[in-house]
Amino acid sequence: MTTSSEPIIQVNQNILEMEYAVRGPIPQRAAELQREGKPIIFCNIGNPQALGQPSMTYYRQVLSLVEDPSKIQRERQLKQLFEESPVSELKDDDFISDDVLDLSEQITRMTKNGTGAYTESKGFDFIREAIAEFIDKRDDVEGSGGVKSDPEKIFLTTGASGGVKYVIDLLIADPNDGIMIPIPQYPLYSASIKKAGGVQVDYYPDEDSDWTFSRDVLDESLDKARQQGVMVKGIVVINPGNPTGAVLNRNSIDEVIQFAKENGLVIIADEVYQENIYNGEFISFAKALGDLKVPLFSLHSISKGFYGECGHRGGYLEVRNPPKVQGSDLDFLDLLLKQASVSLCSNTAGQLLTYLMVSPPEEDSHSYVQFVQEKKNILRDLRKKAAIVREAFAQMEGVECFGETGAMYLFPRLNKLPEGKTDFDYCLALLEETGLCTVNGSGFGQKAGTNHLRIAFLPPTPLLEDVLPRWIEFHNRYVNSYRTE
Amino acid sequence: MTTSSEPIIQVNQNILEMEYAVRGPIPQRAAELQREGKPIIFCNIGNPQALGQPSMTYYRQVLSLVEDPSKIQRERQLKQLFEESPVSELKDDDFISDDVLDLSEQITRMTKNGTGAYTESKGFDFIREAIAEFIDKRDDVEGSGGVKSDPEKIFLTTGASGGVKYVIDLLIADPNDGIMIPIPQYPLYSASIKKAGGVQVDYYPDEDSDWTFSRDVLDESLDKARQQGVMVKGIVVINPGNPTGAVLNRNSIDEVIQFAKENGLVIIADEVYQENIYNGEFISFAKALGDLKVPLFSLHSISKGFYGECGHRGGYLEVRNPPKVQGSDLDFLDLLLKQASVSLCSNTAGQLLTYLMVSPPEEDSHSYVQFVQEKKNILRDLRKKAAIVREAFAQMEGVECFGETGAMYLFPRLNKLPEGKTDFDYCLALLEETGLCTVNGSGFGQKAGTNHLRIAFLPPTPLLEDVLPRWIEFHNRYVNSYRTE
Repeated sequence: MTTSSEPIIQVNQNILEMEYAVRGPIPQRAAELQREGKPIIFCNIGNPQALGQPSMTYYRQVLSLVEDPSKIQRERQLKQLFEESPVSELKDDDFISDDVLDLSEQITRMTKNGTGAYTESKGFDFIREAIAEFIDKRDDVEGSGGVKSDPEKIFLTTGASGGVKYVIDLLIADPNDGIMIPIPQYPLYSASIKKAGGVQVDYYPDEDSDWTFSRDVLDESLDKARQQGVMVKGIVVINPGNPTGAVLNRNSIDEVIQFAKENGLVIIADEVYQENIYNGEFISFAKALGDLKVPLFSLHSISKGFYGECGHRGGYLEVRNPPKVQGSDLDFLDLLLKQASVSLCSNTAGQLLTYLMVSPPEEDSHSYVQFVQEKKNILRDLRKKAAIVREAFAQMEGVECFGETGAMYLFPRLNKLPEGKTDFDYCLALLEETGLCTVNGSGFGQKAGTNHLRIAFLPPTPLLEDVLPRWIEFHNRYVNSYRTE
Repeated sequence: MTTSSEPIIQVNQNILEMEYAVRGPIPQRAAELQREGKPIIFCNIGNPQALGQPSMTYYRQVLSLVEDPSKIQRERQLKQLFEESPVSELKDDDFISDDVLDLSEQITRMTKNGTGAYTESKGFDFIREAIAEFIDKRDDVEGSGGVKSDPEKIFLTTGASGGVKYVIDLLIADPNDGIMIPIPQYPLYSASIKKAGGVQVDYYPDEDSDWTFSRDVLDESLDKARQQGVMVKGIVVINPGNPTGAVLNRNSIDEVIQFAKENGLVIIADEVYQENIYNGEFISFAKALGDLKVPLFSLHSISKGFYGECGHRGGYLEVRNPPKVQGSDLDFLDLLLKQASVSLCSNTAGQLLTYLMVSPPEEDSHSYVQFVQEKKNILRDLRKKAAIVREAFAQMEGVECFGETGAMYLFPRLNKLPEGKTDFDYCLALLEETGLCTVNGSGFGQKAGTNHLRIAFLPPTPLLEDVLPRWIEFHNRYVNSYRTE
């Protein structure tokens, strides 16, 4: 204990050791270079609107009106005046369509107290109901005889990360408790497990088989952890993958479910990229689970998809088969609710955008055509950009990239690096030479002896088309330098 | 380990034991009664807009435009058309004033990527700069030769609670580490310390002296904790008080600072009610600290004051004299930043409202008059409601209430309860009989043998005027019932 005027304090070792590469040393160096005036292309993070992706007109019109509902009535009045005496300077399109006005009015009514009051801890009732309907429709519950989603088991959260932290904090009861995560993984998971003081238990999807996996991979990881005395409580799956971008096949999903069932584990299914499928098909864990009694925590978010509303920090956590709590009458829902209560509620703008995400405009509405057009453009653009980047890999010596492209990322393997060089060195050199900011594979974890990088394929096409040839040139020079003959 | 299909899981004991009375059993019972059709007056939580307090017009106009910036240009066009050919149905006031349009345009430009992108982990630069200026002006740094606030030491957070959790999670390095909190306290503190796995160390402001305290109170608490082997790391002060509503005097503030300095503690100053002063004066810890090298974490929020934007979850944490970290080259700023990075950033709508909170309209602007009028009305209303409730206490047997009124709460002491009855019983009976939902003093902690309740004096005056006589009647009957002669 010091009594001097500037204490030196012992802090939580878990926070001290926690790592978060997505905003780590390479992006920090990129920010430094940018301050020095160097043009940087930030491909280190899935932050679409920072790279010029427009927001969805429909979402923002509604959000804007619900934040200032006095403008709904005024818009109606303006429209009426304009209809009665048109002005050549204004077109119909300069006014907000009736379906948007009606919806904004309806939402304002449903919020009861507007956006400025705390909501229920779990989030607005009407939004949780809309989410349950969205899930049922997405999974064709009616057609397939599946299990309906229950609004009482849905929590509106601060992005998806808010929900992840609730579940992980709850599961880690002991420094010996572990959670299985795929390697490579999104560092939110390693960071949250570290912060909660638990053990990160790695499992290794098979890169060469497009990041799918068989039961062996899971059993091997669990057995090894158990031998080391780790009590494994759950397994994380990210589908489509981050950082791999790979879309999981049905077989891998079923393997996880069987594995969890037989070993009494909970499943944490990160499905925030479910709209970012460019070929292939998204199968939700909820759908694959059916009526099996395996505890499932599914996550979704407004930050990704074609909407990319990262800054608004909205998302949800859906629970199926909430486990009972040992030594207590409570179950997981009660304790998730308690955690949500201490944070009071997630922010209302994020909640409203979550509502809009799960309730697109009706097919016969005025907004529908524009909405669908914007959505299509954004997804087509993403698909095209992924393809351009993949094509560039073909021209880079020893670069391979596996998996059906999904999410917003590619995670190529760098098979050929100069002796003694790591993917971190590579990414740093790439940044310094070309201004392209990626994240080294080691920031996400990877099989020992391999090297990768993650690139978020979000910049405008012309920027990519400019930087890719320079990257190819850099790459082929870099991997052939420092040769140890 | 269970391998059955419905696992029973051992969970984090700290979350299981954590309590949060503000949304605890009494409010839950109130919600139940409301569902049964009984009219309830929710005075359990400082949620002004849920009880009819209007949002500030200026804030919402700007927020609405920044969420949909295409409307800025359109508004200018409409105004011009109207000026050229006025329409009798529209008045000047039906349009948004130029200063609001200019500001919205300026903010949109300053955000660079709008509201849909992740911001810097700490929050927008321009907002952190505006906060620093606000603090300097509030504390008259120039006039008093004080220490200027540094934007690099400011973090935009999810309400104030987001910042509190960062600091407490960081301080608790060990199950033996403790943090001093005033009793009674806002249960966010007890819950956060419990969740972090640390020790809550109570100190007792002197109720009969208007909840002020002397050095003895602090020393006594610290000595006792140390005797029990607790390593005390910091002290929390809430000013104006929650739940007490009491405004702290300069002497108590200075005592805390000296005490922290001599004992190598950090100060966590919860100042979210700094605008809710109805008499007396708010003195910030930053101002009182001056150039003393005591680590200070000050919190502010958009949820309280006259704005009451609870649902938008905005706030900030300002750090002074960040401590060094034992066994590391890092200091507290680095580790706060790392925590903020894992959450990516706080939500943009909350950040923008924080900006507006610290940047009221200029005195010569068009919006100024309306803004000041709305602010004055809300604060006058709150002052009046506090007075009405206090007057009612005078008619209740054995009820005393101490301290200069601040914040949004009164915390009367119930000196006379029937034998064997607690304040929890009282609040439950009060709810069942009158529909008035308060929180029992035991939910906040209180000196052994005393009983209290907390009432948020936020409902519209007519509602209060209706329920107060019924409360008085209930009270005088209740305290005289079950008499054990």
